[in-house]
Amino acid sequence: MPDTTRLQQQIQFLTEIDKLKRILRRTWLLDQSRYENDAEHSWHIAMAAMLFLEYADDPKVDVLRVIKMLLVHDLVEIDAGDTYAYDEKACLDQAEREQKAAERVFGLLPPDQATEFRGLWEEFEARQTPEARYAAALDRFQPLLHNYLTNGRAWQDHAVTSDRVFIRNRPVGEGAPLLGQYAEDLIRDAVAKGFLTE
Amino acid sequence: MPDTTRLQQQIQFLTEIDKLKRILRRTWLLDQSRYENDAEHSWHIAMAAMLFLEYADDPKVDVLRVIKMLLVHDLVEIDAGDTYAYDEKACLDQAEREQKAAERVFGLLPPDQATEFRGLWEEFEARQTPEARYAAALDRFQPLLHNYLTNGRAWQDHAVTSDRVFIRNRPVGEGAPLLGQYAEDLIRDAVAKGFLTE
Repeated sequence: MPDTTRLQQQIQFLTEIDKLKRILRRTWLLDQSRYENDAEHSWHIAMAAMLFLEYADDPKVDVLRVIKMLLVHDLVEIDAGDTYAYDEKACLDQAEREQKAAERVFGLLPPDQATEFRGLWEEFEARQTPEARYAAALDRFQPLLHNYLTNGRAWQDHAVTSDRVFIRNRPVGEGAPLLGQYAEDLIRDAVAKGFLTE
Repeated sequence: MPDTTRLQQQIQFLTEIDKLKRILRRTWLLDQSRYENDAEHSWHIAMAAMLFLEYADDPKVDVLRVIKMLLVHDLVEIDAGDTYAYDEKACLDQAEREQKAAERVFGLLPPDQATEFRGLWEEFEARQTPEARYAAALDRFQPLLHNYLTNGRAWQDHAVTSDRVFIRNRPVGEGAPLLGQYAEDLIRDAVAKGFLTE
């Protein structure tokens, strides 16, 4: 007899995470028709992990673990919401809100998978392993690219200045040096073009 | 000197595939607020690949290749659009439209990656390897679950009957036997509950 409790828990998790599709970020789609949501963003950067693998700082990076991390990295936002990187007030209690969310969301899974998925999220957050550093690089790079290609719309909406964008994107170079250079060039060019104030 | 042409091609691909977020499927989100798009769907079934791995027909399935296939499997729809599985007329020229799309979309990549990504898509489409069969099972299972949990709304909108749903979902059991059983139970229950006509 198959263990139907286990399968039921897994199906409950799969249906619960459908909610990630309604968590909006502050990144515009490239056609500027609407904000991007967390599920799309997660897909996009998982694709980026395949695409940019050759630029990972550690050439022996385990891309499967990177992709898994990226797939799960925003799940806590189902409860905790998207915390805008440049919203200093919201960032204050972000960790606490996300820990609580992790407890509930990953807690829907069978215990072994709860441990595995939560472990991936914690590894991503800690940014200590080569995999987590490469994953973080992609998570920062994609929104930067979108902000640049939408003429800095999100930066202007939130009065973000270039010094904060440089700091925010430092992890790009740490996880993928060549992408880090490219990111810095984008930021400088955004300033030159007037998309971003210095 | 880094090869900036290569990086430019990769970035062009990354920006091009943003369009997948605007390709709508005929699957409702579970809260029925709107249709799901291809990017979200791809993320959701890549998560499902992690979640249901123990049910794959072949216990030695390479989950990295499965996830990669699922991430790229709908990219051709950027040009070819989503072909509704139960729209027989649209299905007639689907292969031709998708081949043309594959040519253009994967053609944006540097040649080695164009070959890799297109190969993943072709493997998925051919459904001959254990990886492709498991991937196909997830690609069918998730919309079935959504249709069931939204009381058959998409089936009713398109006057789909249970015989076609059974046929459509046969690959679920081929790639993941236990999920196949579960899928059949869902379909039978949907008929019993009046969500789906026999």
